[in-house]
Order: sequence, then C-alpha cells, then structure tokens
Amino acid sequence: MIKINNAEELANKIDHTNLNNLSKKEDIDYLVKKANEYKFYSVVVSPYYVKYTKEILKDSPTKLVTVAGFPLGFTTPKAKKKEAKIAIKDGIDELDMVVNIQALKARDYYTVAEEIEKVKNVCGEKVLKVIIEAELLNNEEIVKVSEIIANSGADYIKTSTGMSGLSPKISDIISIQKTAPQMKIKASGGIKDIKTAMRLISLGVDRIGTSSGDLIVEEYKRISEKH
Amino acid sequence: MIKINNAEELANKIDHTNLNNLSKKEDIDYLVKKANEYKFYSVVVSPYYVKYTKEILKDSPTKLVTVAGFPLGFTTPKAKKKEAKIAIKDGIDELDMVVNIQALKARDYYTVAEEIEKVKNVCGEKVLKVIIEAELLNNEEIVKVSEIIANSGADYIKTSTGMSGLSPKISDIISIQKTAPQMKIKASGGIKDIKTAMRLISLGVDRIGTSSGDLIVEEYKRISEKH
Repeated sequence: MIKINNAEELANKIDHTNLNNLSKKEDIDYLVKKANEYKFYSVVVSPYYVKYTKEILKDSPTKLVTVAGFPLGFTTPKAKKKEAKIAIKDGIDELDMVVNIQALKARDYYTVAEEIEKVKNVCGEKVLKVIIEAELLNNEEIVKVSEIIANSGADYIKTSTGMSGLSPKISDIISIQKTAPQMKIKASGGIKDIKTAMRLISLGVDRIGTSSGDLIVEEYKRISEKH
Repeated sequence: MIKINNAEELANKIDHTNLNNLSKKEDIDYLVKKANEYKFYSVVVSPYYVKYTKEILKDSPTKLVTVAGFPLGFTTPKAKKKEAKIAIKDGIDELDMVVNIQALKARDYYTVAEEIEKVKNVCGEKVLKVIIEAELLNNEEIVKVSEIIANSGADYIKTSTGMSGLSPKISDIISIQKTAPQMKIKASGGIKDIKTAMRLISLGVDRIGTSSGDLIVEEYKRISEKH
C-alpha cells in the first residue's frame, strides 16, 4: 500500500495536462502557472505548444511532456519516430506515444514492437510512456501489449489517451502489473477527483495524468485538514 | 443547382471511409469490396492500412486516400510533411490533412500557411485536402483559414474530421465558397443519409466523405425507383 504524506508528494505524481485542440497561449500560460504553484511533476502539451511551453517554463523544475501518434495511434512507425525526433529537438523531457491499436487488434505484433523500439531508440535517456488505450482492449490484448512494451525498452505503460472520458479499471491495472511487474504505470483518462487518484496510487501506479491536477490537490488539502 | 442523374454519378462523389482505430483487415477488405461494387471515387483508410489497401485494390480504379495530423491537427509542420512523404511512398492518390486548429485559434497564421505549403510541396500532383474542423471554428476563423488554404496550393477545403459526429452547416459551406470560390470542397462529418448528401451536393460540394457510402447509394436507388 503506497501512502501519500502531503500535497507535494501527491503533486509530484501528477502530469498536469492540456491536450485540448482549441487551447490558446493563455491556456498554456495558465497550465504552467498552476504547475509551478502546485509543483506538479510535469506539464503535458501538444507538439505545437512544446517550444512555447519550454520558453515559459524557464528554470522551473517542472518536466515537459508531449504526445506522439495521438490519439488514434494508427500512424506509421516512421511517422512516430519523426514526431519523437521533433519533440526532443523542441525540448521535451518525456514522450507519451499511442500504440498502434489497429496493428495490435490485427495481431501484427511485429509493427507494435517495431514502433516502440524505434521511438525508444530516438528517445534515448528521455522517458517513453506507451499509451495502450486499455478501455478499447480485451484482457488478452492488454496482456499481449504489456509483454511487448516490457520487452521494448520503454519506461512506462500508460493506460489511456483520455479521449473516451472513462477512468482506468482496477482490473486493467492489475493485468498490466501481473504481466509486466518491472514496468512503471501511468494511469490516465477521466481522473478528476482525489478518490479516483488515491485509489490508483494505492494500487501502485507511479504517475497520474489529468487535466484536473489543481482540483485534485485542493481536494486532498481539504480532506487532510479535516483529519 | 448541381444534379445527380444516376447512382454511379453519386458514388463517384463519395470518399468511402474507415478511420476507426479498432478496424481489422477484414473491415478494410469489406470497405474495398463495397468501393468496387458501388464504384466509389475513393477509399479513405488510416496510414497504417495504406500499404495493405493498395495491395487489395490491385487494378481497381478506386483512388486511395489517407490522413495526416489526424484528428487533432496539433502536430508540427515537419511531422505532417513526414506523414505525407510516407503516405505517398506507400501508394496514396490523395491526402486529407487536418489544419493546426491551435495555431489558427492563436492567430499564428504563419504556421497554418507553412504547414499546408510544406505538405502540398511534398504532394506535388497528388490531391491535398485541408480539413478545417468547421464546427470548432467561428465564422471569422472559417474565413481566415479558407483564405490561407486558397493561397497555399492545396486542392480542397474539407469541412470536418467527423470526430464530433455533426454534419456540416450550410452556412459554413457558404462562407467557404464566398471566401475561396476557386477551391473545391469536400463535405464530411455525420453524413449518413441521402437527404444530407444531396443537400450538400446541390450546394455545389465536390466530394462527400462518409463511412456510410453504401447506405447512401442504396437509399438513392430506392428513391429513384419510386419516381
């Protein structure tokens, strides 16, 4: 059972995220302001906003994250590799890529492994998280893709793009943990309150992806003060 | 007023589309079977399925189309250019790219123009359609992006990715036509019946993007027989 001792420990597990395709600069400014205020582990922004976010983060310890193959995952390995190269050149610390779900469903495991290995090769020391979109997979597919990722050199298995609005199922997290106990896990998708976040953290999840990081930490503080 | 004289003329305006990220090979087989049967202008598939679709199309006159920057549009100009290069190498005839909506909303028109010009440059003689996701734009933004596209060398303005499920608004089509009368238009998003398709065609739209091409043509045939 993992315990959170204070608001900073909680914030340090959160990737504070804005991947809304209507976001303007002022929305990114606000995201970064909140990240600095709460000391979130990172901010996650679109590839377009990486350069701008890097500028406004300045010397902040907050990490910078973007996505590749997002959100449908059906681009080619070469395209994902190029996205990774651009993102690294633009200044990211971590990359969250979406696995090729079509290839996985078609049992084309060669492509699934190839793309992750290609992207990790480009990432080098930068952290690579592979998004599996668990809510669209059956348990057999979750197990298979977790095995492939565990053998690929990637750093994290991430549960979801968040496009469906559903939060990760406990049973899916457990399947991932059983199959790939050495992998770190980022839980994401529909995580909007402290109860959901704490349930996932207590399961052993290493990172929480959410656009509601500030609300979650505020809720944590209110509850902590009562006890 | 544009008139359709028979089912083949209607089919010849349709890009029969499967961009579902859960699709398997048999779904693509079925898409191509229907395209050959109804003589649709083209099939639209994910980048991952371009090579496979090219193979099964063999000598069919049906054109092959894929997407870039799909569906959120917030990847970088270089990433979209790379996607275009890969798609052309893999055998496409036409490319439907999503414009950078974040850049458009941020009034970063330089990036919007740059990415379209870069991609058109790669496309050469291949047809380039630029998806503007009209339902997410206000009228000023529709006018501005239509101007930029008209000056970019692209071939079509396409209304939508279809992710929202809404069908194109008549007023949006008219705005595009007024601003960029020389541009061809592809209407897409939530077009699932003959009434919607015919209303758009009668407005002067050149191409219809839909995953319901077969149903629309069947409906046309039933109505034609009655008269």
